[in-house]
Amino acid sequence: MNFKMIGRFIALILLVEAVFMLPALIISLCSGEALAVSAFLKTMAVIAVVSGILILLCRSARRGMNAKEGLVCVGLSWIFLSLAGCLPFVFSGAIPNYIDALFEIVSGFTTTGSSVLARPEDLPNSILYWRSFSHWLGGMGVLVFLLALSPGDNQGAGFTMHLLRAESPGPAVGKLVPKMRKTATILYFIYIALTLLNILFLLLGNMPLFDAVCTAFGTAGTGGFGVRSDSIASYSPYIQYVTAVFMLLFGINFSCYYLILLRQFKSVFKDEELRLYIGIVAGSVLLIVANLWGTFSSAEETFRHAFFQVSSIITTTGYATTNFDLWPSFSKAILLMLMITGACAGSTGGGIKIARVLLIFKSLRRNIRQVLHPKKVQVIRSNDQVADEQILANTNAYLAAYVIIIIASVLLISLDGFSTTTNITAVLACFNNIGPGLEAVGPSCNFAGFSPLSKLVLIWDMLAGRLEIFPILVLFSRSTWLHR
Amino acid sequence: MNFKMIGRFIALILLVEAVFMLPALIISLCSGEALAVSAFLKTMAVIAVVSGILILLCRSARRGMNAKEGLVCVGLSWIFLSLAGCLPFVFSGAIPNYIDALFEIVSGFTTTGSSVLARPEDLPNSILYWRSFSHWLGGMGVLVFLLALSPGDNQGAGFTMHLLRAESPGPAVGKLVPKMRKTATILYFIYIALTLLNILFLLLGNMPLFDAVCTAFGTAGTGGFGVRSDSIASYSPYIQYVTAVFMLLFGINFSCYYLILLRQFKSVFKDEELRLYIGIVAGSVLLIVANLWGTFSSAEETFRHAFFQVSSIITTTGYATTNFDLWPSFSKAILLMLMITGACAGSTGGGIKIARVLLIFKSLRRNIRQVLHPKKVQVIRSNDQVADEQILANTNAYLAAYVIIIIASVLLISLDGFSTTTNITAVLACFNNIGPGLEAVGPSCNFAGFSPLSKLVLIWDMLAGRLEIFPILVLFSRSTWLHR
Repeated sequence: MNFKMIGRFIALILLVEAVFMLPALIISLCSGEALAVSAFLKTMAVIAVVSGILILLCRSARRGMNAKEGLVCVGLSWIFLSLAGCLPFVFSGAIPNYIDALFEIVSGFTTTGSSVLARPEDLPNSILYWRSFSHWLGGMGVLVFLLALSPGDNQGAGFTMHLLRAESPGPAVGKLVPKMRKTATILYFIYIALTLLNILFLLLGNMPLFDAVCTAFGTAGTGGFGVRSDSIASYSPYIQYVTAVFMLLFGINFSCYYLILLRQFKSVFKDEELRLYIGIVAGSVLLIVANLWGTFSSAEETFRHAFFQVSSIITTTGYATTNFDLWPSFSKAILLMLMITGACAGSTGGGIKIARVLLIFKSLRRNIRQVLHPKKVQVIRSNDQVADEQILANTNAYLAAYVIIIIASVLLISLDGFSTTTNITAVLACFNNIGPGLEAVGPSCNFAGFSPLSKLVLIWDMLAGRLEIFPILVLFSRSTWLHR
Repeated sequence: MNFKMIGRFIALILLVEAVFMLPALIISLCSGEALAVSAFLKTMAVIAVVSGILILLCRSARRGMNAKEGLVCVGLSWIFLSLAGCLPFVFSGAIPNYIDALFEIVSGFTTTGSSVLARPEDLPNSILYWRSFSHWLGGMGVLVFLLALSPGDNQGAGFTMHLLRAESPGPAVGKLVPKMRKTATILYFIYIALTLLNILFLLLGNMPLFDAVCTAFGTAGTGGFGVRSDSIASYSPYIQYVTAVFMLLFGINFSCYYLILLRQFKSVFKDEELRLYIGIVAGSVLLIVANLWGTFSSAEETFRHAFFQVSSIITTTGYATTNFDLWPSFSKAILLMLMITGACAGSTGGGIKIARVLLIFKSLRRNIRQVLHPKKVQVIRSNDQVADEQILANTNAYLAAYVIIIIASVLLISLDGFSTTTNITAVLACFNNIGPGLEAVGPSCNFAGFSPLSKLVLIWDMLAGRLEIFPILVLFSRSTWLHR
């Protein structure tokens, strides 16, 4: 294990995080939030000391990394990023308890949006900004950002490939162009452009600038931290529609946008995942509108709430315009299904991802055909190309790990004595990076009531969900740390 | 598709069912239950007519079957067996509604034990006997029984192998001896011997003979239909312990008993699945006892209820000595986990099966190792033998089908408006052939409140669960019925 290289990498990540805290520091200075100013300064000092020590200890690092070291690097980076990122909450007294603060920032970076806060509007603006910005940073991935900034593929193509593969969501990493650095740059360009467009549309609806920026951060990262305790419910219908549409846009595979930039509209239109995604959204909205018919005062309102909630849950954002925990069972069951499928691979959304659901269905169909016609060789096609058997095997392993982690997590947090539905949906909401669940963790409630043990379990789930299990799982695997 | 052969086979199965109704007919005659006598006679007449027509239509059938026809044969046999088996309930007026009666008999044959009846003690004895006997017949499989009786492997080894494979639970079919017919005979010999032993032990505890026979049928098939509405709660502690131990015994792979008969104790002791099974039971009892400490009046009572419920749920029997829906969340979460794992492969129990859980874990571990060391070839060992890659692929496909079917079923039955926990546990209880779930389908409630649509969905789940998905799934696959 190349510990020195990993140490240097973590130091670098922490320093980048300190730089990203500067806008929040400036906001705290401008708004005269004295406690927040000192909190950000203290955090920066802690980061400087820790990074300094790490860099000193890890001089003369050997270059190059293998797949294992790449995974460990990604897992540890996210953990250190969170351990330091929650310090402003603690130092400013916004969330005095360290475990609670850690829960909040992990929920931010992993774009989950589950909160321990009952009333976010009581927080200083700079702290709220940092909380929402963590969604934006975590959405596309801070390592991808570093890659985009790096002076060239000087770490070796293998290293950058490992990082991107470990941090990007989906069964197969989408290399837009041969150079990984350029891929990262294109991704961030699209990401920034869409975010700015989102802010613009929100401002056109007379949303205050601060609210617009924070809401757009939560939308872009498909996170879900709002600046008001009722999420998006008290904003105008226009703002709700804009947010619903942009959530859906950020749930699409970013390579589709690249293809649009290249004017390859035909391949975008033919993308199987995108078509299924649109189909699922349309079908779910239709079924929920039918199920809710007559609950709200007008057809428009019924449609708006159904559309918003479907778009929020399938993209695993977690914003809400109404308390869907009060909806009839059928609508809740649809939302529960959307929680599990999640958005498209290569987007900022979480969940199993539509591409994996497609692969799982296709591999199941192949299995049935194989039972029926044992002597015929069956291949699986994905967008008219033969799917890689290794990706299929990985997808099945992913599903197995998914089921095992959910069962184990539900078992552990059930020690707190909440209802079965609360426990199951709390784990689903954290592991799929959604935010709210049902009952005691419903959209009008928060996660503050859980014990520290449960919070640590849910923190683990959020990280494992965001990094698609394996970078976190290998940190707990004996064979990672054994010298061979 | 060899339709004539399948038709003849179904006719044979129905005639065997009519023969199995004779003991129930005799009981109804002895107890002077006039309605039941005519109900059984009418059912037998219906079966005679249908079988006669089928045999007439399917004269001159071509011999031999392929894998596809074997699967279709098994799926259709179970459906026809159920369609005819519920007629005594309808004709006697015990359960006048046909869908309800079908639900009850499918729950019996699939050894689920979910009931639509609030008070089984109100039923005539002969009907109660037929209800409990359906567990015993379904537990080991009526096709396996036919195989044991058949004059020789005259249908070709391929045909019998397909049937046994489709009806026997577990990832790989255990061929005890090279001849399938002899394997089936040995299985039924062990099954009958254990059932008689169970009845004997119950009689020693002064249980009435009728109750003892019915309870032993439910235990042997790991079914769970009781003759009293409070299940086993009002019997003596001795009878509760006997039932708990025998449930566990029927949850063990029957090949272990064959090895004991051959005095190969060492290989039984070394069996990975058996060791994990015992470990899970012991661990779960311990955790639940700790969680329930102080709830019951004595330590013995706490241990007894914990032991009984764990043994009942892991073997997917569904008997109860107490209303575990009132237990704390942690204990309920453990039971929920046991619902999913289920008992050993090759036993009469349902669920995913411990052997599959082991394979899923091992295949996940291999996947992690493969990520860490991409260039090394990794094999999976099961009881010190290299596992077949085809069985691994099937196990993963099984898990995928399992997850998809559960999600789809929850979605459909949620239309009835019950709580999320009720919906999830009702599907889990039916699909894993357990019986009771939580909340509205808890051990003190029944399934009568569901709509006909939900009951049909749950009937489908019970059949798919008992036959391990594929024989039922292929009936709904387009490529089964297409002529190629």
